[in-house]
Amino acid sequence: MPPDPFFAGEGLDRADHLRADPAAIAALLGHGDALQLVWDNGAPSLDERGKLKWQDISGEPPLFLGFDQGAPRFSALPDGSTPANAYAHIHLLALLDVRDAPTFSAALSLANWHRRHGHCSVCGRMTEPNRGGWSRACPNCSAEHYPRSDPVVIMLAEHEGRLLLGRQPQYPEGRYSALAGFVEPGESIEDAVARELKEEAGIEVYDVHYWCSQPWPFPSSLMIGAHATAASDQLIIDKNELDDARWFSRGEVLAALAGGPAAPFQPPPKWAIARTLLDHWVDGLK
Amino acid sequence: MPPDPFFAGEGLDRADHLRADPAAIAALLGHGDALQLVWDNGAPSLDERGKLKWQDISGEPPLFLGFDQGAPRFSALPDGSTPANAYAHIHLLALLDVRDAPTFSAALSLANWHRRHGHCSVCGRMTEPNRGGWSRACPNCSAEHYPRSDPVVIMLAEHEGRLLLGRQPQYPEGRYSALAGFVEPGESIEDAVARELKEEAGIEVYDVHYWCSQPWPFPSSLMIGAHATAASDQLIIDKNELDDARWFSRGEVLAALAGGPAAPFQPPPKWAIARTLLDHWVDGLK
Repeated sequence: MPPDPFFAGEGLDRADHLRADPAAIAALLGHGDALQLVWDNGAPSLDERGKLKWQDISGEPPLFLGFDQGAPRFSALPDGSTPANAYAHIHLLALLDVRDAPTFSAALSLANWHRRHGHCSVCGRMTEPNRGGWSRACPNCSAEHYPRSDPVVIMLAEHEGRLLLGRQPQYPEGRYSALAGFVEPGESIEDAVARELKEEAGIEVYDVHYWCSQPWPFPSSLMIGAHATAASDQLIIDKNELDDARWFSRGEVLAALAGGPAAPFQPPPKWAIARTLLDHWVDGLK
Repeated sequence: MPPDPFFAGEGLDRADHLRADPAAIAALLGHGDALQLVWDNGAPSLDERGKLKWQDISGEPPLFLGFDQGAPRFSALPDGSTPANAYAHIHLLALLDVRDAPTFSAALSLANWHRRHGHCSVCGRMTEPNRGGWSRACPNCSAEHYPRSDPVVIMLAEHEGRLLLGRQPQYPEGRYSALAGFVEPGESIEDAVARELKEEAGIEVYDVHYWCSQPWPFPSSLMIGAHATAASDQLIIDKNELDDARWFSRGEVLAALAGGPAAPFQPPPKWAIARTLLDHWVDGLK
């Protein structure tokens, strides 16, 4: 098994059973050790060591994030006027402490969802946070809406010892990474891996294996990492999706992960599940 | 690897690249072999052999489902007045031909999503089908909304050769099945498996392994099947979620799958991924 990707792993005790009990949540707001998350320009705020910042409870923050060793943790909804660019805060990940990453991810995903889901999709009326902020309820049509977590497949296709990696147009110069795409309604994970590799690179694959998964709060995806074996190395690249895609040998991938001037490409950063997949592949633990 | 669950596997060629080209889709409506899905009371209609029913194109059905061996397949949106009960059509699965199951699942999931997402969640205005029905666009605020596919973990916890199965209140009499729950924002698949088993059954697990996945159109989930090892067999059952949960030996599971009067419980039906997981477990192929 690959190691846990960044963002995965134990965060706060979510205490889901309390969400249906508004009186219990209200009482926790008065708990002596209760704190609420500090936000800065639409993202959780970090101190100079990369730890999440917390402050005393002010008013009635609607998101109940859970317990940190018995101490309740809440959050307000960040100012809705902040830009909705999903990647606006990705630079924070270079600083973020890995132990705070699960809580950062949960809070930012949830805030991103509230920011774009103020209205009821059934009837159009304004909705209200409900269940400690883990749903929104419509006072008009009674619909209840739950946060989205969109499954995305991200995969290493392999052919005779070489790996397929691609470049999206928005990547930094020299970056190559795993191909990826959203799982669509009516597809299994394995179906989506095969379809995306066919669409973006023109290859047929078999023997699709799940490796690991990662919650990704830009804005709110579940990244599902997999490995697939390609029947051929003949590529037909979809230039609407990718600038380029190429096969890399194990030696080239090792050199890229080692970095330095001889690196044949720039690998994805440590917080990307694509990096976890590459590290796992070169470790030969498949 | 377990076999493909019901609903998974190859369906229509989705031809995703055409969705951004309204003129191409409009031209396909005039294709000599184009057909559109027949709906009956909010679900795809089946003939007496369990095959999907298709009819000649009428008007401009907004959903482009893809190609069946080069022949375009479309669908209208079913009447919005039909009941939104997610399980209203589950009885159809006893008849549905397995080869038509992926298309049934994609069409029903997509229709379920359109039915509950007529309004823009950002600004509340009515939206319009876009990209051949694979998104909805807001003419007011320009937001584009994509169909949901909600990841759900469903898992067999094992302790010293016995499996944990539970009963939800709405199950038919005698039914026991795998425990399950939605993956929440900020969680990996493995995190969600551990949290749900702790919440619903009070057990700590380790060594979580993915097995297989299934698109589930009631209303639009991605079922993610896994196996976990429990540290202890001491249960604390959440009676708000489950009527009961018990450990079953391999012999009991085998007897249940064999059916008949001596069956210790009624297993989930063949179209449920929980059945695929049980079949896989008794085959000992883990």
